[in-house]
Parts: sequence; C-alpha cells; structure tokens
Amino acid sequence: MGSDLVSTSAGSRREFLKRGTTVAIGLPAVLSTLGACSDKAAEAAQATTPAAPAAPPSPRQRADLMDAMHEKGVKAFPAKTEGKGNQLLKPRIEKGVKVFDLTAEEIQWEAEPGRKVKAWAYNGQVPGPQIRVRQGDRVRVNLINKLPESTVIHFHGVEVPNDQDGVPFITQPPVKPGERYAYEFTVPNAGSHMYHSHHNAALQVGQGLLGAFIVEPRRPVASHRADLDYVMVLNDGSHGFTLNGKSFPATEPIVCQQGQTVRIRYMNEGMMIHPMHLHGMHMTVIAKDGWDQPAPWKCDTLNIAPGERWDVLVKASNPGTWAFHCHILPHAESEHGMIGMVTALIVKPATV
Amino acid sequence: MGSDLVSTSAGSRREFLKRGTTVAIGLPAVLSTLGACSDKAAEAAQATTPAAPAAPPSPRQRADLMDAMHEKGVKAFPAKTEGKGNQLLKPRIEKGVKVFDLTAEEIQWEAEPGRKVKAWAYNGQVPGPQIRVRQGDRVRVNLINKLPESTVIHFHGVEVPNDQDGVPFITQPPVKPGERYAYEFTVPNAGSHMYHSHHNAALQVGQGLLGAFIVEPRRPVASHRADLDYVMVLNDGSHGFTLNGKSFPATEPIVCQQGQTVRIRYMNEGMMIHPMHLHGMHMTVIAKDGWDQPAPWKCDTLNIAPGERWDVLVKASNPGTWAFHCHILPHAESEHGMIGMVTALIVKPATV
Amino acid sequence: MGSDLVSTSAGSRREFLKRGTTVAIGLPAVLSTLGACSDKAAEAAQATTPAAPAAPPSPRQRADLMDAMHEKGVKAFPAKTEGKGNQLLKPRIEKGVKVFDLTAEEIQWEAEPGRKVKAWAYNGQVPGPQIRVRQGDRVRVNLINKLPESTVIHFHGVEVPNDQDGVPFITQPPVKPGERYAYEFTVPNAGSHMYHSHHNAALQVGQGLLGAFIVEPRRPVASHRADLDYVMVLNDGSHGFTLNGKSFPATEPIVCQQGQTVRIRYMNEGMMIHPMHLHGMHMTVIAKDGWDQPAPWKCDTLNIAPGERWDVLVKASNPGTWAFHCHILPHAESEHGMIGMVTALIVKPATV
Repeated sequence: MGSDLVSTSAGSRREFLKRGTTVAIGLPAVLSTLGACSDKAAEAAQATTPAAPAAPPSPRQRADLMDAMHEKGVKAFPAKTEGKGNQLLKPRIEKGVKVFDLTAEEIQWEAEPGRKVKAWAYNGQVPGPQIRVRQGDRVRVNLINKLPESTVIHFHGVEVPNDQDGVPFITQPPVKPGERYAYEFTVPNAGSHMYHSHHNAALQVGQGLLGAFIVEPRRPVASHRADLDYVMVLNDGSHGFTLNGKSFPATEPIVCQQGQTVRIRYMNEGMMIHPMHLHGMHMTVIAKDGWDQPAPWKCDTLNIAPGERWDVLVKASNPGTWAFHCHILPHAESEHGMIGMVTALIVKPATV
Repeated sequence: MGSDLVSTSAGSRREFLKRGTTVAIGLPAVLSTLGACSDKAAEAAQATTPAAPAAPPSPRQRADLMDAMHEKGVKAFPAKTEGKGNQLLKPRIEKGVKVFDLTAEEIQWEAEPGRKVKAWAYNGQVPGPQIRVRQGDRVRVNLINKLPESTVIHFHGVEVPNDQDGVPFITQPPVKPGERYAYEFTVPNAGSHMYHSHHNAALQVGQGLLGAFIVEPRRPVASHRADLDYVMVLNDGSHGFTLNGKSFPATEPIVCQQGQTVRIRYMNEGMMIHPMHLHGMHMTVIAKDGWDQPAPWKCDTLNIAPGERWDVLVKASNPGTWAFHCHILPHAESEHGMIGMVTALIVKPATV
Repeated sequence: MGSDLVSTSAGSRREFLKRGTTVAIGLPAVLSTLGACSDKAAEAAQATTPAAPAAPPSPRQRADLMDAMHEKGVKAFPAKTEGKGNQLLKPRIEKGVKVFDLTAEEIQWEAEPGRKVKAWAYNGQVPGPQIRVRQGDRVRVNLINKLPESTVIHFHGVEVPNDQDGVPFITQPPVKPGERYAYEFTVPNAGSHMYHSHHNAALQVGQGLLGAFIVEPRRPVASHRADLDYVMVLNDGSHGFTLNGKSFPATEPIVCQQGQTVRIRYMNEGMMIHPMHLHGMHMTVIAKDGWDQPAPWKCDTLNIAPGERWDVLVKASNPGTWAFHCHILPHAESEHGMIGMVTALIVKPATV
C-alpha cells in the first residue's frame, strides 16, 4: 500500500475509468481505445486480445480492466493533494485569554487528486483548523469575514452564554462581508465539539465552514487515556464524500503501533448518516456529543448522524492495514474502485 | 424575537424571496424589482445603489438582501397560523371507561403563514389531539371515518390485545368511508406512544393521520419529574418539514423559567431521520419508545428515526433564547433563512 | 392469515393494481376494466355499480377496490416463491477444520411472486447460506467464483488475521472469474456477524453477495437463552426492500408459542436505515455488532443502519398475529397494500 508503485496520475486514472465504463457495457469499441491507456494490467489484458476489432472483451479481460482500476486507487493511497484541513491551531495568549483568529474566505479545495472545487474555508482549510482548549479556559475567537456573504460562528455543543451562541437575529447580528466579530467565553463543558457557520448554513457548512472544537476535561478520565487522539470529520457536501475534507485515495491513514490505544472523535458535519465500519478490531464507545456514556459499549460499525459526535477507543491489537470506511457502500466504492469515505487504520506489528 | 417588529406578511416575504433568488445569481435586473419590496433593510440596500440599470449589486448589498430575508423569518417567529395540532383531548367517562372520539376528515392545514395544504386530520388537527391516559386505565377510542378512503388506527407502542391492534385484514376489517369503529383496551404499558393510521399509511400518515398517545406510569419515577412536559412530533410528509404540524416561523417556542426541568417527548412520524439539536444546554435521555433506559445518558443532538420515541430531560440552566432544530441543515435553513424544523427553547432568567 | 383463501396469483394482483391506479385518479374508464378482475370484493363493488359508462366510482367503491388489493396481499402471505435464502449450511469436517464452500454465480431470484430479478448469489441463495460456527473453531471458507467479475469475501465483524480480511489489493488479490480462493482462520470473537463481497461491493452486495456469519460464544450467557433464534437480513438493493431476500407477501412469518423467547438477529446489508417496528410486544436489546450491551434495554422500534447488527430478545407474551415491519412507511406499504419489509410474528396461544 503505497504511492511508489504507480507512476500515472489520478487524473489519467479517471480518464481511464471513463473508458472502463465503455468496457462495462460491453462495446467492442473499447479495444481500440485501450492503446491510450498506460496502466500495466490493462496493457496485459490487451496483449492477450486478438487484433480483430469485432471481438468483445472476455469476462476475464473485463475483470482485469476493472481490477486494474481498483488497484490503481489503492496503490495511490494516501494520494498527495494540495491543502490539509483540521490542523491544530495554536492560540496566542492575550492577558490570560487564548485567542484564535479564523478568517473565512473562498478558496479552491483539492478534495482528491485533480478534483478542485470551490470551498468556503476558515484559514484556507477544510475542515477549518482544529481548536483545542481546556475546560475552564477563557477563549476568544476572532471571525474575519472575507466571504461575499454574511456569516457567523456557532460553537456546537459548547454551553456558551446566549450572546456568544452565533445565531443571527437571535443572539447577534450577522457579520457582514469585510467585517470582523469577536466571540469570547469561558469554556464550561468538556468534550468533542464543533464550530461552524449558523447563517445560510445548509450552503455555508456544506461548502466548508466547519471545524473541530475539542475541550480537554479539567479532570481526565483514566480509562480514556489514549496513545493517539484522532479527530475524524465526516462530510457529504459540495466536496463529495469526505473524511477531514479529502476523498479516497487522498484520505489520511491512521498509523499506530500494535498494543496502542487510539481515540477517534467522529463528527458529522454533513446531511446524511455515515455508519463508520472498522475492519479487524472493535471500537469501544465512551462518549456521545462530549458527554461520557454511563457505561462503555462495543461495536464495529457506528452510525453517526448529522450534528452528532461520538468518541471511541480502539485497542490496536490486530496488526495489519485495515480498511476503515462508511458502510453505506455507494459512499465508499464504485465500480471504479474505492472512493470517498474510506481510509485505513495501520497497526504496525510490535517488535519482539 | 417577536412578531411585533415586522408588519409585512410571510406571504409577501415569500414573493420577496423569489426575487431574492434572482439576486443570488447576480442579475442586475434585481435592482428594478426592489421597489416592490417593503422590507426596510432591502430598501436601505437599494438606497445606496446608483440608479443606473446596468450596475450589479455589490456583495454587501446582496448580503444585506439575504440577511433581511433571514431577519424577517426570525422576527416573524412565532408566526400566527390557522389551526393548532397536538391539543390535549379530554376524555368523557362512560362507566369507568375513558372515551375519546377521533373524527378523520379532510381539511386544509396551514403549516406556515399563507401555505395551506390538504391534510387528512383527526378532529381537524395535525398532529391529531394529544391523548393522555394512565397505565391501567380502560380506554375506548371511537374512530369516525369521514375520509374518502378506508382507514384504521394503530396504537404504536401500546401492547394492546391483538384484536385492537389496527392492522387491516390481520386484526380487523378496514373502517370504510362513513363508518365508525370502536377500539377498547386496558392500557398495559406506560410511556410516550403514538396513534396513527395503518392503512395506506405511507399516504395517510404522511397527510396527517397521527397523534401522540401518552401513558402516565402507575408509579412515576421520581428522577423523571419535570416542570414542563412537552410533546414534539417530527414529520416530513406532505406538509413539509414540521414540528407539531408547523414549519418555522410558525412553530411553537418552548418557554420555561431558569432552573426548571423540561421533559421533551420526541416522536418521529415521518420517513426520514431527524437529529434534533438543542443549543446552549444538553439533554438527558431517559426513555426509548416509552421504556426507561437502564441509565440516563447525555447528548445535545439526538437522532430520532421514523417510528421512534425518545424522552429527554433538559435542565434549563442557561438563560436566553436558544435555537432548537433538526441538524440535517436543509430541513432547517435555506438561503432565505430558517425554515421547517426549527423552534426555540426560551429560558427566562430567574429573578434574583 | 393464509394463502388458502385466495386462488388468484400475485401476478394477476399486480395487473389488477395497475388498473387500480386508474381508479385512484378517478377515471370512469376503470369501470369497463373491472370485468377482468377476479377479486371477490372488487366484483362485489362492481355489482353495486350501475352499467352507465359515464358514472365515476363513488368513494365507497374506490375504497372497496383499494381494500380488496390490500386484502389480497395479506391473504397471499406467506406467498410461495422459488428459492429460499439464509438456509443453514452444514460444514464438512476436514482434519478438525469446519469447511464451507461458497459458489458465487449469477441466478434469477424471485423476490416476490412473479418478480424475478438478476441476482449474484452464493450457492443460489439470497441471502447466501447461513454459516454458524463456535468461538474458537477453525474455519475454512472456499470461494468459487463463477461470476463474470472478480470478487472476494470480507467477514464483517469477525476479527480475523489481516491476510484473511478480504479487501482487494490491501489484504489479497481479487479472485478472478473462474478462480477459487480459500479463507481460513480460527474464530476469535462471538456474535452476529456477516460475510459479503468487498469488491465492487456497492454493486455486488446490492445484487446479493451477502450472508449471515453467526458465532456462538464459547460461554453462552444464561440470560440470552432463547427458544427460537432468528436471523433477519435487511436489504434495499436491486431486489427491492427485502427481509431475507424476499418482499411481502413472500416474506417468512416467525412462528412461536406464547411464553417462548425469540432472539432476533438484525443485519442491515443495504444502503438505507431501517427502523424495525414490532407490534404488540417490545424487544430487549442485548447486543450490538455481536458485542453484549452493558445493560439490556427495551424498545419497540429499532433503527438498524447499514453494516450494523443488533440482537434482541422478544418475550412472546401477547398471542396473535403481529405486524412486524420497517417503519419508513414507503418501505412497507403502498396504496396497493403492504409491500417490501413486512412480515409477522405469530404467537400461538398457550394451551390451557
């Protein structure tokens, strides 16, 4: 699993896929187009094909073509793209207040190799930068609006005072294009929360105005200790089916050592449910929307609904590269290979 | 947040919105239509616009226009509409039996100001009248069918004897147009239940033949005591995205005093999930489908699937007007402002 | 409730339904077509109709026609169809290994009477044969691929070693048309699991390449003892809305004696949620994805998301024939009667 085995770009894979669909409907014409395809397996398939233009590809040839497309996707993982979302944003301290600046503006976002889409982003990232604070912290978030629309920030799950809740005409005026606005509050409750637009939100959040707002508890729970703490933002807006703003094969693998414990903080910023399925190991569910569950419980497929956050622990006991994906299959695979909401948990074997 | 600030009707808001979409696609033509708009902010925006017909509106002008539409919606809340669903239905007592009459007939239902839609309703209400009884009560429900179709009533969640279960050709014949039918049973189990049609139900329930059937427990649980007990029926049928039969801004705010406990009984009578998100405070989940959860647990976004009921307690600790909505954003907001499944929890500050 | 009351085939019911829709839009033309309808109630309705061709049917006549269609569906239940999925597959023992052969090939599948659809099936069944093993068993599954595409098997929920996980190009090469492949592992974890294709899976699973993989625990939990253990696979792929591969009225009733305990193992192999609602009795949820819940909890409507498995116990205390269906109503009923994801739990009264 690495990008070193495949030299052709994902762009040419996509062109290839288009031709592949011609194969899928069984037109002999496909044979004449195969010459343009640089993929090894496809060439191999072609090499065994007689030159007569009328002979349709055999099932085995079609299977080889399809499989080559699938292989290309897997081999490209993790594919390089421009931009990385959900990066930790360090605050600056002003008189004991942790200050975060979030500039909302329009950018082009590369969700997968070669696919650039308009995005409305905080600090040029989709998801916006990850904010991590501690329960009881005094926090200020400066919103700088460089969008062509008004906007606001709602701190989803954080029990802020009403006037910091970010709902236009209920708790504040909208922040106009070119304006800035400061939110400030003392963080009352711990947990995995989110920040996002609450103005024209079906559009604005769908285009990328969202991010993780993690609050470390004042008193950490010992049984929740993890070696790796991973935020996974699910989305299905204008950038397609994404994990942290990227579609497979541009998604990011989670890498750990056998025996380690990984905490995953799922957050759904989309419009659809996404039941996330981990292969090879189970997940222990410890918190919902930042609140500890009364007793942890186990599963391998966890249904995350829009607006929900679920925290799970994975004991990385089973070494190997494990598929990890939304189990609504059209969000994760097409006849051209794995797509969208797919990544991998890579458990490196313990050294003996 | 009140209707007193806006004198124009929601109807004219909608007309305005149509023109607003013209703005959204950036046609200069919008400028010539603005004269017909009575909205202050829009007028203000226009006032700063030169008269030349060719000048497109600036981003700020467009933002002002959009924001004015959003403001109008919020200011109209709670907007007056004809008809109110889910009203408590007092039984009459006949020889120790609590008797409820439900007449099913076609009406026009105003789901939001100016939008009247055909409904099939019990007693002229969508949802039908709220029935509240006590565990162990003897109950009779008389169904009078004035619809052009046969119908029946199923008591969803109530463990009635089989012949009272309301499934045509399995437990009873359908009740024909013009006929009546009596259901009678002793209520065995407590909880938040529902009654609705079980005949051609995808249509009949979608058009309004549904209501809440609440059963108070024989022995109330002390920790479930609440100052306010609110039933919230979610729907997404032919009347649009509704809470208790109304779409924002015609939905009903929930009003309480700081320090009070509010019990919310969610019921989904629609075809889609609705993850309900409360701002500013968390919810403590105490029951599922009328059955106490083994341990209460907390969240701020609760996913309610079709047919499910979830009971939660909210400790109204945080004063203010709090948005409360489905977090599938297109069920709650459009570029014209908040719509559909949006209401507010208003926590009035405690007097010191 | 039995098929003995209706002599006409479901095929003719469907033709009848087509005519029924003509009624629904109120064309007098329907009257002239009624002569072809063999259904008693419809004939009765017709008998009361004057011969004049211009008279539209009265509401009562239309209701009778609709009700006759509904009755026909219920009376046909459980309707005979060719093929039965989810049949227990006995292993052969080879040197202490339980060996199962699964041949994947294209078949025609009769999901409901008269509706035959292309399927990709294991051993000619949709769902594929049910595999039941014991925790700690050594298991070999031979996949014989007679499909025109490559395929693989993923054991969803079973914590197999990585090289047995069935993900093409990550853990193994795809199994080409005409090839075979052997999976072998010692079963580590108990529970209700699944096996299905993980190659071009949105298509292959949607067309039928799926089955139940049940692992009995090494040490059974006493409180989970059941008289009947029923696997219910939910699907919404190319065969329509199905329970164990069949649509109502071809679904299979679950039959038990009053006082017995029924364990139901729900598995969602589809792309949509299915909140399953049982009439007359509640379900006690004991396990999620094969893992015991920390405390059992009760409900009557259980939301099953794609990839999820939920195990419930039903104490069959309430005698009668109880509707049991997905509560997304368009998955369960049309104006022509009950369809798709509907079955019944039949509780036979205890003999006194």
